[in-house]
Amino acid sequence: MLDHTANGVFPIAPTPFDAGGQIDFASIDRLVEFYRGVGSNGMTVLGIMGEAPKLDQAEAIAVASRFIERGGSAMPVIVGVSAPGFAAMSGLSKAAMDAGAAGVMIAPPPSLRTDDQIVTYYKQAVEAVGDAPFVIQDYPLTLSVIMTPEVIRRIVMDNPTCVMLKHEDWPGLEKISKLRGFQRDGSMRPISILCGNGGLFLDFEMERGADGSMTGYAFPDMLVDVCRMSKAGDRNGAHDLFDAHLPLVRYEHQQGVGLAVRKYVLMKRGVLASDAQRRPGSALSAAAKQEVDYLLSRVARVDPRAAL
Amino acid sequence: MLDHTANGVFPIAPTPFDAGGQIDFASIDRLVEFYRGVGSNGMTVLGIMGEAPKLDQAEAIAVASRFIERGGSAMPVIVGVSAPGFAAMSGLSKAAMDAGAAGVMIAPPPSLRTDDQIVTYYKQAVEAVGDAPFVIQDYPLTLSVIMTPEVIRRIVMDNPTCVMLKHEDWPGLEKISKLRGFQRDGSMRPISILCGNGGLFLDFEMERGADGSMTGYAFPDMLVDVCRMSKAGDRNGAHDLFDAHLPLVRYEHQQGVGLAVRKYVLMKRGVLASDAQRRPGSALSAAAKQEVDYLLSRVARVDPRAAL
Amino acid sequence: MLDHTANGVFPIAPTPFDAGGQIDFASIDRLVEFYRGVGSNGMTVLGIMGEAPKLDQAEAIAVASRFIERGGSAMPVIVGVSAPGFAAMSGLSKAAMDAGAAGVMIAPPPSLRTDDQIVTYYKQAVEAVGDAPFVIQDYPLTLSVIMTPEVIRRIVMDNPTCVMLKHEDWPGLEKISKLRGFQRDGSMRPISILCGNGGLFLDFEMERGADGSMTGYAFPDMLVDVCRMSKAGDRNGAHDLFDAHLPLVRYEHQQGVGLAVRKYVLMKRGVLASDAQRRPGSALSAAAKQEVDYLLSRVARVDPRAAL
Amino acid sequence: MLDHTANGVFPIAPTPFDAGGQIDFASIDRLVEFYRGVGSNGMTVLGIMGEAPKLDQAEAIAVASRFIERGGSAMPVIVGVSAPGFAAMSGLSKAAMDAGAAGVMIAPPPSLRTDDQIVTYYKQAVEAVGDAPFVIQDYPLTLSVIMTPEVIRRIVMDNPTCVMLKHEDWPGLEKISKLRGFQRDGSMRPISILCGNGGLFLDFEMERGADGSMTGYAFPDMLVDVCRMSKAGDRNGAHDLFDAHLPLVRYEHQQGVGLAVRKYVLMKRGVLASDAQRRPGSALSAAAKQEVDYLLSRVARVDPRAAL
Repeated sequence: MLDHTANGVFPIAPTPFDAGGQIDFASIDRLVEFYRGVGSNGMTVLGIMGEAPKLDQAEAIAVASRFIERGGSAMPVIVGVSAPGFAAMSGLSKAAMDAGAAGVMIAPPPSLRTDDQIVTYYKQAVEAVGDAPFVIQDYPLTLSVIMTPEVIRRIVMDNPTCVMLKHEDWPGLEKISKLRGFQRDGSMRPISILCGNGGLFLDFEMERGADGSMTGYAFPDMLVDVCRMSKAGDRNGAHDLFDAHLPLVRYEHQQGVGLAVRKYVLMKRGVLASDAQRRPGSALSAAAKQEVDYLLSRVARVDPRAAL
Repeated sequence: MLDHTANGVFPIAPTPFDAGGQIDFASIDRLVEFYRGVGSNGMTVLGIMGEAPKLDQAEAIAVASRFIERGGSAMPVIVGVSAPGFAAMSGLSKAAMDAGAAGVMIAPPPSLRTDDQIVTYYKQAVEAVGDAPFVIQDYPLTLSVIMTPEVIRRIVMDNPTCVMLKHEDWPGLEKISKLRGFQRDGSMRPISILCGNGGLFLDFEMERGADGSMTGYAFPDMLVDVCRMSKAGDRNGAHDLFDAHLPLVRYEHQQGVGLAVRKYVLMKRGVLASDAQRRPGSALSAAAKQEVDYLLSRVARVDPRAAL
Repeated sequence: MLDHTANGVFPIAPTPFDAGGQIDFASIDRLVEFYRGVGSNGMTVLGIMGEAPKLDQAEAIAVASRFIERGGSAMPVIVGVSAPGFAAMSGLSKAAMDAGAAGVMIAPPPSLRTDDQIVTYYKQAVEAVGDAPFVIQDYPLTLSVIMTPEVIRRIVMDNPTCVMLKHEDWPGLEKISKLRGFQRDGSMRPISILCGNGGLFLDFEMERGADGSMTGYAFPDMLVDVCRMSKAGDRNGAHDLFDAHLPLVRYEHQQGVGLAVRKYVLMKRGVLASDAQRRPGSALSAAAKQEVDYLLSRVARVDPRAAL
Repeated sequence: MLDHTANGVFPIAPTPFDAGGQIDFASIDRLVEFYRGVGSNGMTVLGIMGEAPKLDQAEAIAVASRFIERGGSAMPVIVGVSAPGFAAMSGLSKAAMDAGAAGVMIAPPPSLRTDDQIVTYYKQAVEAVGDAPFVIQDYPLTLSVIMTPEVIRRIVMDNPTCVMLKHEDWPGLEKISKLRGFQRDGSMRPISILCGNGGLFLDFEMERGADGSMTGYAFPDMLVDVCRMSKAGDRNGAHDLFDAHLPLVRYEHQQGVGLAVRKYVLMKRGVLASDAQRRPGSALSAAAKQEVDYLLSRVARVDPRAAL
């Protein structure tokens, strides 16, 4: 079961589809092996970049179960259970935990505005997911819900099952520092902080006190290495590797188009059989594919894993 | 099957729950009899005010099926199938149509902005719901998607299965006039226009060319009478009855609180066994209940049906 | 100077323009006499419905000064000083107070989300307006900023010059009750609460503890009478008069179109020389004018002041 | 006067303040010399990152005039004239053009949604600014207005004085390709496209057909070099230099904090006397300053101009 000591890299797994929009379970199996092979510490499935809203509930459960089953005990799986209502959230969460998930991730609905609305929402969500350990997803750029560090502290302190923050506020470096300060001054119990936002600030996020990365960048191996080097104190080494990837990280971070880039690269890496998305999805133009290929060739000058 | 000649009153049916949050099927049966008894022309279920997002898919299908079964052939049922993704929309739509629904209603997701995004969304939604006749829900106040009359015309002309507009733009009188103008100048085929927005402008909407009402105001009998009088040319009679109800219509139209008012009155009318909502829901304070009771007593001076 | 004992009706004054878009000062003079004549307790100028953003700063000062000068000591004037930045707010506020304004009104910019952002904004705004008594404008429908009662209390308690709330949350009845409860339990010092939202809930707002009305409905005489009757305990009398106007109140309350209705009626009442708005403005269609005329004729059956 | 052949780098100039919040004209003079010295083709003042909304109108005119006067004929100045209303826009535009500005820049107000609303807004804005050449600012991330390429084409074709697009949609590469395609197929006359977004995609924007850069990154010298190399066909050279700066470009691109980074670096470069912002502004924490210093030291390994 997930707890506040979780750290390292939990890639946001894409959901593989074939060209007809059907779930491609063979590619799920390859994804799990890939994540395991690069040294991931776990996986996160059915996130926003996992195209979760495009699946119906039976499909969602099937996808989560396959990841969990293939991952086995060594690869804890966090399952995104954000839903328009608590009945759907509860059903998905129960199914995921029954299948062996390590915890669930909950994003706030875009309509929330005030501090109290956010805190109340998480209290109700916890009633829906029961005693499953849960992750707060803090992603204002997409969700348009702004949680101050104080609000996050209230959620953490109100709900003992809250064990992790998926940090993707933007900008967000000061937020990490502030939350770690809350822990030091004793006003908040420790939580795990894994960072998203496509990895765009992972270099400094680690230095500010993050425990690792939770994003779907197509080179989780780089994320693993940067986290490792950063924790080991090899600042320049971590930045050197990170900076070599940054042009591609930035390119993949584009809203809307980003998932197409990610799946295209994972396909080139032999992990996904297809880069298809379910509709409504984005697709890369010929020009965009050439740009990605060019970026890969440039990354490869430093990191041979990008030579595809 | 629903077509563009649909008219009269299709109440937005609430979903009845008991105090524990379970679906109350006996109250559904009473609702159907109630709607039939007051002269409704059909029903709309699983709308926003039907707490649709709070149901999981199996529950949603069960609720829609019960309404359809009890309504029988004389009471066509429109089923809201708005969903975060097309897989869920497709599954719910298929189940509803298989159960005998007359058509489906589709609201645009709040993220849509440009004219083309809206038109494209409906094109993809039609692929999801197949040949089910469908209703466009145009409700910017809640959905924050703004559809110009020209965009609605594009959706109508692009999709032969589009047969109705649930009109609840606000303000929206000119929009009705403009759409009817499109029909007159031959640039748009005829569609049915039923009006929502809690009924707040039904008096003038009918005069502008609407075909009827699709809202959940707790006195659908008033809606039926106003539509009938307005169509019969009894302008003053229609306004007199409407105005007598307007203080309560306005009170029920409050965002968030409105559904609690509606269920409270329907409970007082003996239709619902409970005014409970599923969480997260709103509840009436003691002061609010007294205000509603006072308004009912005032309406009753003109319309004895409000003497509860 | 404005203080927390302010009560009664402070109409939101429109800014009169001629057909060419120039400010019509003669109509300002008539407006002041009109407001005085119907028993208003003050006036509010340069609000959102005063087309304030369409004026440049010199014009804004000229308009405010004319209202103040004509109003004299018996008609305190509140000047809206909301601005994209504090330099403009400060300049306008200083000019208005120098010209004899009783206080200023400040709306939050739409970008604010968290409780702390809102509280901080008002702290900075107070630095900009100095010791001018100020009014919080709480209008989420248009401004999309949501202030909880607790946030309003923080603003009141942080800033001794905060003397009034322009209440136009929607729905908002419980907010009045809650704020008055804060006063009773001693956690907030008394403030004046005047209600906006086009007057749509004035009947109950007074019963919940509001001190009066601050809206621009074209019959401020009705607002004065309703406030008076409500305070005198004549509940039925207040509702009878209010309900007679409600169909028109509702019609005028339409976003976008509402100001055109208001100016049209004020022109018919002989107060404004023209119903022109500066661009970008709204205009009434022929159908809309006929609807307003019809509503006036119906109001006139109960309130002869509407016989125009 | 600005026309569609404009190209190269037009830095977005910050407005220099001293610690007390007063405008620092001496730093304006140094900025102009700095921009001229690095090979800029012009300047853009009073943009969002120029803290324009924090200036009152007299200050805005004084700032624009100083830039224009010091820039002389060799450094055309574009003046941001976005305003909540057309009176203020008109006044500022006239003053700027009278002072010798080359053109004005107009951002759409955040309330605009539909295609027609956007097109109409620009038509009315053109009436306000008269025959001044103007730039469309297309910046959805901050302004939340989404303009399709087709809408931009309508604005260009409707308004002969539209000569330039400040492109900062995100993602936006396909938009450049599409607009250039409109020019090729003859459906849109040529316009200049300069790119913003902090420079985050300048490398590929140039390759897609942009004419240059209009952003305030603290190393405009890099922007000049990348534009030059890219136009000269030195793809790898352009990317090598760009990539060396990208870690800092990304850091400066953070919303809210970005301007503090920019002013801090410009102060370190000796151009600004202070990195102060007017309130409400952001400030760098000690940790953030160290991060910027570290990034500068890393950039300096490739680009000695970053050795500060």
